[in-house]
Amino acid sequence: MPIRNADEYIQSLRDRKLKVYLFGELVTDPVDHPVIRPSVNAVAETYRLADEQPELATVSSQLSGKRVNRFLHVTENVDDVVMQNRMQRRLGQRTGACFQRCVGMDAINALYSVTFDMDQRGQSSYHRRFRAFVRHMQEENFVIGGAMTDVKGDRSKPPHQQDDPDLFLRVVGRRDGGLVIRGAKAHQTGCINSHWLLVMPTLRLSPADKDYAVSVAVPVDHPGITYIYGRQSCDSRALEGSEIDQGNAGFGGQEAMIVFDDVFVPGEHVFMDGETDFAATLVERFTSYHRRSYVCKTGLGDVIIGAAATIADYNGVSKASHVRDKLVEMAHLNETIYGAGIAASHESKPTAAGNYQCDDLLANVCKHNVTRFPYELARLAQDLAGGLLVTMPSDKDFESSTTGPILRKYLKTTPGVSVDNRRRILRLIENMTLGRNAVGYLTESLHGAGSPQGQRIQIQRLMNIEQKKALAKRLAGIDQAKGANEAAVDE
Amino acid sequence: MPIRNADEYIQSLRDRKLKVYLFGELVTDPVDHPVIRPSVNAVAETYRLADEQPELATVSSQLSGKRVNRFLHVTENVDDVVMQNRMQRRLGQRTGACFQRCVGMDAINALYSVTFDMDQRGQSSYHRRFRAFVRHMQEENFVIGGAMTDVKGDRSKPPHQQDDPDLFLRVVGRRDGGLVIRGAKAHQTGCINSHWLLVMPTLRLSPADKDYAVSVAVPVDHPGITYIYGRQSCDSRALEGSEIDQGNAGFGGQEAMIVFDDVFVPGEHVFMDGETDFAATLVERFTSYHRRSYVCKTGLGDVIIGAAATIADYNGVSKASHVRDKLVEMAHLNETIYGAGIAASHESKPTAAGNYQCDDLLANVCKHNVTRFPYELARLAQDLAGGLLVTMPSDKDFESSTTGPILRKYLKTTPGVSVDNRRRILRLIENMTLGRNAVGYLTESLHGAGSPQGQRIQIQRLMNIEQKKALAKRLAGIDQAKGANEAAVDE
Amino acid sequence: MPIRNADEYIQSLRDRKLKVYLFGELVTDPVDHPVIRPSVNAVAETYRLADEQPELATVSSQLSGKRVNRFLHVTENVDDVVMQNRMQRRLGQRTGACFQRCVGMDAINALYSVTFDMDQRGQSSYHRRFRAFVRHMQEENFVIGGAMTDVKGDRSKPPHQQDDPDLFLRVVGRRDGGLVIRGAKAHQTGCINSHWLLVMPTLRLSPADKDYAVSVAVPVDHPGITYIYGRQSCDSRALEGSEIDQGNAGFGGQEAMIVFDDVFVPGEHVFMDGETDFAATLVERFTSYHRRSYVCKTGLGDVIIGAAATIADYNGVSKASHVRDKLVEMAHLNETIYGAGIAASHESKPTAAGNYQCDDLLANVCKHNVTRFPYELARLAQDLAGGLLVTMPSDKDFESSTTGPILRKYLKTTPGVSVDNRRRILRLIENMTLGRNAVGYLTESLHGAGSPQGQRIQIQRLMNIEQKKALAKRLAGIDQAKGANEAAVDE
Amino acid sequence: MPIRNADEYIQSLRDRKLKVYLFGELVTDPVDHPVIRPSVNAVAETYRLADEQPELATVSSQLSGKRVNRFLHVTENVDDVVMQNRMQRRLGQRTGACFQRCVGMDAINALYSVTFDMDQRGQSSYHRRFRAFVRHMQEENFVIGGAMTDVKGDRSKPPHQQDDPDLFLRVVGRRDGGLVIRGAKAHQTGCINSHWLLVMPTLRLSPADKDYAVSVAVPVDHPGITYIYGRQSCDSRALEGSEIDQGNAGFGGQEAMIVFDDVFVPGEHVFMDGETDFAATLVERFTSYHRRSYVCKTGLGDVIIGAAATIADYNGVSKASHVRDKLVEMAHLNETIYGAGIAASHESKPTAAGNYQCDDLLANVCKHNVTRFPYELARLAQDLAGGLLVTMPSDKDFESSTTGPILRKYLKTTPGVSVDNRRRILRLIENMTLGRNAVGYLTESLHGAGSPQGQRIQIQRLMNIEQKKALAKRLAGIDQAKGANEAAVDE
Repeated sequence: MPIRNADEYIQSLRDRKLKVYLFGELVTDPVDHPVIRPSVNAVAETYRLADEQPELATVSSQLSGKRVNRFLHVTENVDDVVMQNRMQRRLGQRTGACFQRCVGMDAINALYSVTFDMDQRGQSSYHRRFRAFVRHMQEENFVIGGAMTDVKGDRSKPPHQQDDPDLFLRVVGRRDGGLVIRGAKAHQTGCINSHWLLVMPTLRLSPADKDYAVSVAVPVDHPGITYIYGRQSCDSRALEGSEIDQGNAGFGGQEAMIVFDDVFVPGEHVFMDGETDFAATLVERFTSYHRRSYVCKTGLGDVIIGAAATIADYNGVSKASHVRDKLVEMAHLNETIYGAGIAASHESKPTAAGNYQCDDLLANVCKHNVTRFPYELARLAQDLAGGLLVTMPSDKDFESSTTGPILRKYLKTTPGVSVDNRRRILRLIENMTLGRNAVGYLTESLHGAGSPQGQRIQIQRLMNIEQKKALAKRLAGIDQAKGANEAAVDE
Repeated sequence: MPIRNADEYIQSLRDRKLKVYLFGELVTDPVDHPVIRPSVNAVAETYRLADEQPELATVSSQLSGKRVNRFLHVTENVDDVVMQNRMQRRLGQRTGACFQRCVGMDAINALYSVTFDMDQRGQSSYHRRFRAFVRHMQEENFVIGGAMTDVKGDRSKPPHQQDDPDLFLRVVGRRDGGLVIRGAKAHQTGCINSHWLLVMPTLRLSPADKDYAVSVAVPVDHPGITYIYGRQSCDSRALEGSEIDQGNAGFGGQEAMIVFDDVFVPGEHVFMDGETDFAATLVERFTSYHRRSYVCKTGLGDVIIGAAATIADYNGVSKASHVRDKLVEMAHLNETIYGAGIAASHESKPTAAGNYQCDDLLANVCKHNVTRFPYELARLAQDLAGGLLVTMPSDKDFESSTTGPILRKYLKTTPGVSVDNRRRILRLIENMTLGRNAVGYLTESLHGAGSPQGQRIQIQRLMNIEQKKALAKRLAGIDQAKGANEAAVDE
Repeated sequence: MPIRNADEYIQSLRDRKLKVYLFGELVTDPVDHPVIRPSVNAVAETYRLADEQPELATVSSQLSGKRVNRFLHVTENVDDVVMQNRMQRRLGQRTGACFQRCVGMDAINALYSVTFDMDQRGQSSYHRRFRAFVRHMQEENFVIGGAMTDVKGDRSKPPHQQDDPDLFLRVVGRRDGGLVIRGAKAHQTGCINSHWLLVMPTLRLSPADKDYAVSVAVPVDHPGITYIYGRQSCDSRALEGSEIDQGNAGFGGQEAMIVFDDVFVPGEHVFMDGETDFAATLVERFTSYHRRSYVCKTGLGDVIIGAAATIADYNGVSKASHVRDKLVEMAHLNETIYGAGIAASHESKPTAAGNYQCDDLLANVCKHNVTRFPYELARLAQDLAGGLLVTMPSDKDFESSTTGPILRKYLKTTPGVSVDNRRRILRLIENMTLGRNAVGYLTESLHGAGSPQGQRIQIQRLMNIEQKKALAKRLAGIDQAKGANEAAVDE
Repeated sequence: MPIRNADEYIQSLRDRKLKVYLFGELVTDPVDHPVIRPSVNAVAETYRLADEQPELATVSSQLSGKRVNRFLHVTENVDDVVMQNRMQRRLGQRTGACFQRCVGMDAINALYSVTFDMDQRGQSSYHRRFRAFVRHMQEENFVIGGAMTDVKGDRSKPPHQQDDPDLFLRVVGRRDGGLVIRGAKAHQTGCINSHWLLVMPTLRLSPADKDYAVSVAVPVDHPGITYIYGRQSCDSRALEGSEIDQGNAGFGGQEAMIVFDDVFVPGEHVFMDGETDFAATLVERFTSYHRRSYVCKTGLGDVIIGAAATIADYNGVSKASHVRDKLVEMAHLNETIYGAGIAASHESKPTAAGNYQCDDLLANVCKHNVTRFPYELARLAQDLAGGLLVTMPSDKDFESSTTGPILRKYLKTTPGVSVDNRRRILRLIENMTLGRNAVGYLTESLHGAGSPQGQRIQIQRLMNIEQKKALAKRLAGIDQAKGANEAAVDE
């Protein structure tokens, strides 16, 4: 029976006997661990949204013939791609955090067309297998995590030349129509709170890297997998027993290293096995979707703008022209990100497999702005917050009968503003600019879906420089017939 | 018989006995005046594109039942709005200049819905009249110029309180079912090369400004109109008889002050007369379209990127990493503008009248980036150009038998690069960053369709700050029921 | 006997019976509290530097006739002001943190001239008293903390109109030739690790605020004072017992709220009492020194640039052109801050009292850049760090016999690079961009010595706009004799 | 008899029979040519300032024992270097243009120490010769132009490998103890209005480039020299006979190509001949001075800020908060440039020869900001100017009896503001952002004294990355003894 709602989702994560390590210890019950729980809640919110705004977060799938969660949907038209962005922004607004489910959605859509293309060339039946896999996920309403980023070892060398061949995930054995894989995937956003993982290669491969060209689906609770949880700024505040000091006690992201220790994958869950020439295609299609998925950060941007506007209210300065101007600048930057992202989705084109792929240039432009603007929004939010943001005593000092009254006396501002509300909003800004969700709002905005230089390389490839030169030469009156390497002018 | 092509268009502008003044003199033949001609050519390019890429620059109109130039089309669906942007970028690429026809297109679409809305309220029949007018324009394939920006006098006072009541255009008489208007419109892009002008009010009006709430159509060659041509940087190079030093000898913009000296307008061409409460609506719908129309500047951006890439080739430095990086940055900024603009178009919604209006927030965001990024593109293009950009002797020095050979000897660079091509591309960059089309690419990008502060005010109105505060408060755990002015959270 | 070195300094802080509250509890031994100790170490470094580079950190004082720590020195010439900046940068380099002693130094120098000016007007003998106080500090080699920022309550009202009159520190009684003061000072950098506090008013006052115009010296261990320690991002990592996860285990800042509960101050330690018209002067001279003191952040900048360069080495990408370019950009921004700061010091002028005051315009320009550039340096450092910065497991996971070997296997990079060194440098970058010293490097850079808008107001006052207008008018050929309010052109 | 004042200076330029070509023709009287005269006026202003503010623009020289113009002075102490910057800013304020005399000043100071160093190594007596030359210049009060930038041909090849060996200036003969030189120097700022030229090599040379390692002094009126005048944006407005449309009719820059056609130089004027290993030293010392000399642009910045503030007054919007904020931003950026520049001068150190050399890192930082901030100041000035900046009709239209009255009627703004003053200030802003002095304020700011990448390379060399890494490692607790290439920590 499929998972029907957020509560059932959370229930589905229990008793899975995962090997999760955090702060040097095996976590027996990840779902209820205070550090981990906010990341479970963030995914749960994707189920909750499906309940509350089904037109936004669910869609009818031709694959299963069911209405499914949009995160499990293979796009069937342009609007489907656009709606992903709307849903992402909404979830960003609801969680103020990374809700971790986009990787799976983008991986599904990338693998859908790449498995099709691989099959076109040869004897393989990856696409049929993959459709069956997705149909199964839809029927169970499962969460899929993606696992792409290898640990990479010495970056100047390809996988097969590494001193330790395991530094990229690879096939170490073949039996019973299936594969045995080994290796580790780093920086995995949302895995312990998923049901299945889609494993994909991380970069362009050459024929010598054949064992590394592997894409498979693996259940999260496979006994061969170890999860080592990454720590985040201020993560341990969740252990202190105070809600306020967490800033956003409800929601957070999750990053872990996933170690595959000779995990067997049956044939039906293998979607690429040795097709090195399709590794780059898969990476590119996935990152193209995923760079545009960073529109989610405009939802977080809405939260931080709202937090900055609220603290300005509480400080009694919201009418000052420089305050309003900073809020406008924040909105302008936030919507600039959104514009390029939603444009990339609107400009989607069908793939050979029939699903829709967003515009790659605009997707890269969107993500590249995401590597810059959230930092400026964070700076402006800190500007509006004032110094108390980083000098405010702990919740326990406010709860103390000795210091509490003193603090409440001296932190009063305008009549009608509650000292507690003021510190709640300050802690939220701290959470998003220095604390736990700063990891998602800032650093992940830089590096997720590829670091800034990755986008610049892709923009360089896609910017069609020869056409641009031809345009300039025509207007300058340069005879292009004479020129050697002058391209024809057309779009 | 309608104008069928660029040549017929140019022919249609002759012998109109306009009163055009330039450099203190009456210009008897504006079409062939060297300073004015490039702006005629730019509009002619809109006819040429219709010939060469009809799918891009023409469209079938329900209004006239004909296939019409897209600049005369009332949008019938979202795609129509999007296609305007594609056409605009293409024309920016073809001209490297302002092609001046967007004002009319955006005015048509704004008046279409505003006349409808006015009629809904009362007895007026503006919409029927306006449809008839547009149908006529389509049938003749005319160029429509817009005339909106009043000279404004003392900016701290509304129209009716100005010392001189003519400082905003107004109705000074009524007769024969028509109106007599007087006043001046400043900074009019594309008027002398148009056939008809659509006059519109320039700002929010109060009931006391009744005579200023006027929108009419007037033929460009009405004898009561005087045009005083604005001068532009390097305009007189067109009089020197050298093509190269102009940089872009073919295309340029046109700005003039239009003075209406008691011009009579028959009733059928009156589309607003006294409805002060609709003045702001008209301005807002027009600027919303028009701010997104600044996507045209990405076409100019393509040219300047191409010019910068070409001069890097000619200077033999195109492989240097900092050179490639600057080109990527230029492309990134250019596409960021495009993203927000095309997104605004993709997110269009139908009006009550049935045509489609773009998303106002994204349109403002697009234009606001246009007030910033072209300046940075210009700076980067100058960086790649090198100092010769501003120290290169005149074309006449190159043509001289004394200095020509010296210059050709000493300005040689890499084998295979022509000295003349090098200076052509440098002059194009000069044209776009300091010269004649810098006016269009830079200063008009700042002030056209409203100066930067105008966009900030509009973004402030549209950013939905109360919803954002509510989002933040919810995540911070602030009980919003208690709060006074806390908005409900929903989109 | 004076404090002779860092060890004696630390010893001098023990057994003072301060009322320090942290995490809701009274801290009996602040010096050895793991959260507080790094801030003690940072101040100790000022003693250590005096030992190791006496030419930099000590100077011969005319006041006491002794060679004294530069932080206790009243500047006697321009070079003294410049040397403060050199010492500050060096200490920033040595601690990677706020070393908290500048407030006292800048307060000494501001009060030195303001007490002189007050005495010039009337019967007071503040200056003689203040010289005696400073001489005493020099003789004992004490640390002076400054206490300026009031909690401010309702920001739209002056002190005497607040609902609670204690929301600005004020005189509540007078006896025995001394004063009794009450109130709280917020955001106090470096107080618990000081020996004396210099209390100063926080803003421009009117005659009605007479009781608020008070400046006094108070010993840190006065029984009427309560310290409530502010919490900082990741502060509790210091309690975990792991050095590495702290990033910079040695050094940190300190911020506390200081509450004065009817503290008696004898007359000899009163340096302002009711001179409301000098409050703004004191604030301005202090902030002028102190805004330029933010040159210290270029020392932290050196550390973060070094950390970014080191992680690039460890990741094996230090030769990539974009990596080198980012490091250059970081250095350029860092030195731009330094340039304006050291220029402000070089352009110092003598006060009437004989000490030297830096250039106010350049000091504000320096600080204003400090409110921007460290955020960009932090962003670039995170860019070079890579995603592992925020996904790396805890030190305990590395120490664990289960997960440690796995992590060490999979986080290997280039041969010769130690996994532990890699994570040490990543934790340092985390510390400075998200963690504990991000508070000092980023947020304090925004708000310390006045928030950005404060600098803009001061720049507006100092920019001499009328002279600039006159310059422009002269070149434009505008007859300035005719004009009404045209200023004469001269410097 | 020396030149005593501005008038005598202008007189001294007449009747020199220079071969100056402009617009394809030989200019018989360059001094009175309308296009050239503003550049003569700009240099004349250096004489005028010496009269009016002798403490600023003159100084007593140990070399000649006379009080000399500061532009001819060899710096004798730190203050001399600082005073250069003060004088430069003042002249920028007085001219709103490049006053062209810094190249000579910086060349004198660079050659002074480099000739000394060359002599230290060998038998040469360059330094004695050079002192005699400078003494002579001081006695006559001449203007010295510098000539450094070769035309460079194929930039991938050193001088001796160019197809045409003349593409770098070189020695083509030796006779009578002197040299014969041939080649061309491009982008020469201020030459026709100078009396002598100091020729210097343009880049690092290898032993094979021996003939290119040449530095000499040549009189401007040497018959073997040809000057081909570079054209600038809007240069021909000076020929129209209207003052207003020029924006700044009084002052402008000058750029020419100087062609040396086998010019003989006697031995006494030879200051380098074959010392290839000193070519880079000379270039570096010169550019170090010269990059900091770009502080002059803050004088132009003062003018453009003043112009922007004035147009805001005239438009009646100077009280709007966004207007004031933009003016503050302009001032902040302008002073940021100044800060780094004057700091470079204040941090000067003596050379072996005894004169003072500025700090190279800060000089590069100053210039690098000059390649960015004036463009932003120009954008902000255009923002405040409004669209009329680029749509205003010509002066002749205002003078016409037909259009003049119409324009004066419709361009009225606030009472008391003259229409003519308004257009004068707009034309000044046009002049500095698009027109003639935009060349100096913008493009020359980019490329003069080396293009941006030149500064980045120099910053990279000077930023002491190894020391910074060591700082970071120490704080991160990385044992540096173990590490291979870890530098010791000290300054």
